[in-house]
Amino acid sequence: MSMTEPRELFLHDLRDIYYAEQLLTTALPKLAEEATDPKLKEGFEKHLQQTKEHVNRLEQVFAILDEDATGEKCPGIDGIKAEHDKFMKDEDPSPEICDAFLTGAGARAEHYEIAAYSGLITLGDALGERDAVELFEQNLADEKAALAELETAAKKLATAAKA
Amino acid sequence: MSMTEPRELFLHDLRDIYYAEQLLTTALPKLAEEATDPKLKEGFEKHLQQTKEHVNRLEQVFAILDEDATGEKCPGIDGIKAEHDKFMKDEDPSPEICDAFLTGAGARAEHYEIAAYSGLITLGDALGERDAVELFEQNLADEKAALAELETAAKKLATAAKA
Repeated sequence: MSMTEPRELFLHDLRDIYYAEQLLTTALPKLAEEATDPKLKEGFEKHLQQTKEHVNRLEQVFAILDEDATGEKCPGIDGIKAEHDKFMKDEDPSPEICDAFLTGAGARAEHYEIAAYSGLITLGDALGERDAVELFEQNLADEKAALAELETAAKKLATAAKA
Repeated sequence: MSMTEPRELFLHDLRDIYYAEQLLTTALPKLAEEATDPKLKEGFEKHLQQTKEHVNRLEQVFAILDEDATGEKCPGIDGIKAEHDKFMKDEDPSPEICDAFLTGAGARAEHYEIAAYSGLITLGDALGERDAVELFEQNLADEKAALAELETAAKKLATAAKA
């Protein structure tokens, strides 16, 4: 069966980010545990709470579209998680290096989500799905804010690791 | 062996993006072939030429650091490529859906690279590696411009697919 309808692509991409957000609700507690810098740790914990709200907003979108809330395996976020897991296992980093690394791992996940929500907003606009777009916009704003916080933390922690 | 030095993390991340850029020199010709919209196709071809320059600039960075230019397997970009490959195989999209999908796949790759270069610039600044940072800045500017072009194309193609 060939995919021919924009609504199918829209649903596919919605299921992709739903899978990704769910995966992040299990990954973020691990990042918070690995982080040693208190502010970084707190940032991951805060973003975990936001991520749970994101899952909830996506479930509202499924309801608006009258579709089942099911995820679609998303190799992109799986790969970003695998990159984190491989580094932690292979490199056994010191606390300072670990913190600096985690800011980069977190930024990669945020960037993935920003790409996904931007695409969903573009498709949703074209399909006239205003209510869904508004919910995506709220999630996107959180991801952009979380990325900005990680970038600020990265600068501080890179300098600290060098000292 | 535990990783304890910021320079090791810097080199690790350099090898990660070197692998990613090399992978993209083989993936972009495929995207250009799959695209049907002439402007999108042309955009992928143009970005392929830029990506070859990026590989070259990264090799200059390895020379500056007096290190061998070797890649480090990067599960993040592998995952983003796998997501593309899976969609094309499973969904067999029509030309209009394919073009809309490719803007999203391209945006995910650009976002990955933006995250990687932003992190390298932060680490390079902390390490005082000015010449390396300048080369990363050049690559980053290209990735940001390519992302902006993809976002513009996405809006046009989403509307076209809906029509």
